[in-house]
Amino acid sequence: MYAQRLDRVRAAMNEQGVDVLLVSVGADLPYLIGYEAMPLPRLTMLVVPRDAEATLVIPRLEVARVIERPDCFSIRGWEETEDPIAVVADLCGRPGVASIGDQTWARHLVDLMGFLPSVQWRRSVELVGPLRAKKDAAEIAALQAAAAAADRVAVQLQGGEIPLIGRTESEVSDELSRRLLAEGHSHVNFAIVAAGENAASPHHHASERVIRAGEVVLCDFGGTYSVAEGEPGYCSDMTRMLYTGEPPAAFRELYDVLFEAQATGVAAATIGTAAQDVDRATRKVIVDAGYGEQFIHRTGHGIGLFEHEDPYIVEGNAVVLEAGHAFSIEPGIYVEGRWGARLEDIVVATEDGPLALNKADHNLVIVER
Amino acid sequence: MYAQRLDRVRAAMNEQGVDVLLVSVGADLPYLIGYEAMPLPRLTMLVVPRDAEATLVIPRLEVARVIERPDCFSIRGWEETEDPIAVVADLCGRPGVASIGDQTWARHLVDLMGFLPSVQWRRSVELVGPLRAKKDAAEIAALQAAAAAADRVAVQLQGGEIPLIGRTESEVSDELSRRLLAEGHSHVNFAIVAAGENAASPHHHASERVIRAGEVVLCDFGGTYSVAEGEPGYCSDMTRMLYTGEPPAAFRELYDVLFEAQATGVAAATIGTAAQDVDRATRKVIVDAGYGEQFIHRTGHGIGLFEHEDPYIVEGNAVVLEAGHAFSIEPGIYVEGRWGARLEDIVVATEDGPLALNKADHNLVIVER
Repeated sequence: MYAQRLDRVRAAMNEQGVDVLLVSVGADLPYLIGYEAMPLPRLTMLVVPRDAEATLVIPRLEVARVIERPDCFSIRGWEETEDPIAVVADLCGRPGVASIGDQTWARHLVDLMGFLPSVQWRRSVELVGPLRAKKDAAEIAALQAAAAAADRVAVQLQGGEIPLIGRTESEVSDELSRRLLAEGHSHVNFAIVAAGENAASPHHHASERVIRAGEVVLCDFGGTYSVAEGEPGYCSDMTRMLYTGEPPAAFRELYDVLFEAQATGVAAATIGTAAQDVDRATRKVIVDAGYGEQFIHRTGHGIGLFEHEDPYIVEGNAVVLEAGHAFSIEPGIYVEGRWGARLEDIVVATEDGPLALNKADHNLVIVER
Repeated sequence: MYAQRLDRVRAAMNEQGVDVLLVSVGADLPYLIGYEAMPLPRLTMLVVPRDAEATLVIPRLEVARVIERPDCFSIRGWEETEDPIAVVADLCGRPGVASIGDQTWARHLVDLMGFLPSVQWRRSVELVGPLRAKKDAAEIAALQAAAAAADRVAVQLQGGEIPLIGRTESEVSDELSRRLLAEGHSHVNFAIVAAGENAASPHHHASERVIRAGEVVLCDFGGTYSVAEGEPGYCSDMTRMLYTGEPPAAFRELYDVLFEAQATGVAAATIGTAAQDVDRATRKVIVDAGYGEQFIHRTGHGIGLFEHEDPYIVEGNAVVLEAGHAFSIEPGIYVEGRWGARLEDIVVATEDGPLALNKADHNLVIVER
């Protein structure tokens, strides 16, 4: 599988005229060779020349972490007193165009520019992004398993197993995190809990604010889930809305619009539709209901080995959806100082139409504790 | 405090001829303004011109996360359909020399190079690194609190509260992680558990291998600890060694050498000593005992808001230790295929001599369960 992915990336290098691909921290590396670089200053970098063997340059003390795949790459451990940038530059030869991994630390790119002064630099997202965006059957199964694990936590939340009233956002966030781990995630990426007026901040950081009776509670959580030990994990990400008591009519009305917009977005995510048209279809429901100014973000983002990746469901993205594209559909309506709401599923474009991976109740759920 | 740090960084920019500093994900941003960027593709970037006001360019939907400090920086939220790189480039003016945050994603640097083609790029570590390396009293207190929390977990481990025999490395790692959180860490950075021959791999990833009676167990763990909610957290990092039963004489002998080397390293870490001389003093003990080839990494790394930062205790680093420098002293001896050992404390250089923050028993501890 990894050999095939490297073949595909080399084909893309040929098409785009890229001589060497350099990949470090982030999701490109596990996608290409099944190994994830430690996010530390010591450099780990896969060097993929267009026409030569790939080499993983890695601190000697981390060599034992790597599962060897001699058909895909060889390993070059570097010693503590060596300069790994020099090792990488040497393996590059004399490239005209080099593609650098998106999340590679800028310090390493600055150092590489010193060794390779006349190179034209490109971003790996243009090369690897379209490959990573199209999930194969095993990857879709992994996303389904991750979504199912997050769904189990959502069901616990909606069933009242996780008390809300009288607890801080932060306490509820910690409990969601513990439950994501208990349901099999290896890592929690975020667990947003936003009560009342805080729900108007889409990326709110769970705070010491106490959740009271009679208010909205937005929960947006996800993590990384590995189907098998040692396999790179795939991400979950979902949002559900609760109300601690009977919601006022104005919020019911807002939520009905959001519910319809989200369902419309999911239904619009068919093969052959441009990503921006999915955003437009979703947004139209909200705009027509008079909440357009309150939907302040894009409709969604791709998801896979990383939380946010191609394809983005946003105005300006003319990429046409293909089978295997996986992304969130997550419209929101935010009324500053008062309240807010978002509803989110992960959706896969398939030959049989859009497949929403998250099944937990999409309605506004009323909890009494 | 943040205003003072920005003043100091501007003074360093003047000295080094840097026109603008651009900081994104990573520890420079919380160091300079108390805000941590989300590690996602949407760009957050602080623009610090040498002679003008600083501006935080941030996705509009994350503006509400920021604690405003109008004396330090203004905020420029960008809309979903705007290009944040253009916004940043515009705020830069026409710099000759720009310093880019170390952990900034390479994709953003490549994009910036398109807007600012004639700029000479430098790494922020040269500018901010020496400032971050010298901890003030509050930072040392934060590191002490983090170390004390990790120490409590070490005491639980050494006291036999965490069973080892018959459990997998991964299960013990998960329990260490839970306990780090229970002792107040906001985040676990790593929890290496390496049994038997796995202890010969310094950055071993805790696996499904079952720990048996009569073998060595290396535990190296740490996380991020905030003294107060919303304050940027400081890191803990410590290593202790256990044996499940009575160790053989050969391991006792190895451990005695390691123990002496680590104590020698701590004692050598006095103000005025070059970082590489601390490495040499530590290494000499191990080399003299005949284990030189088995000590395959540097003696230590600086620590603070990030796990690995300046000053590095390594051959080739002539930086002279100053009051407030904080770093690990963690020699190791690794015998491939057989066993390994490492012993690690966080140490602060002070006017009164080296201050080791970790107090848990430094001896090889025998556990029977």
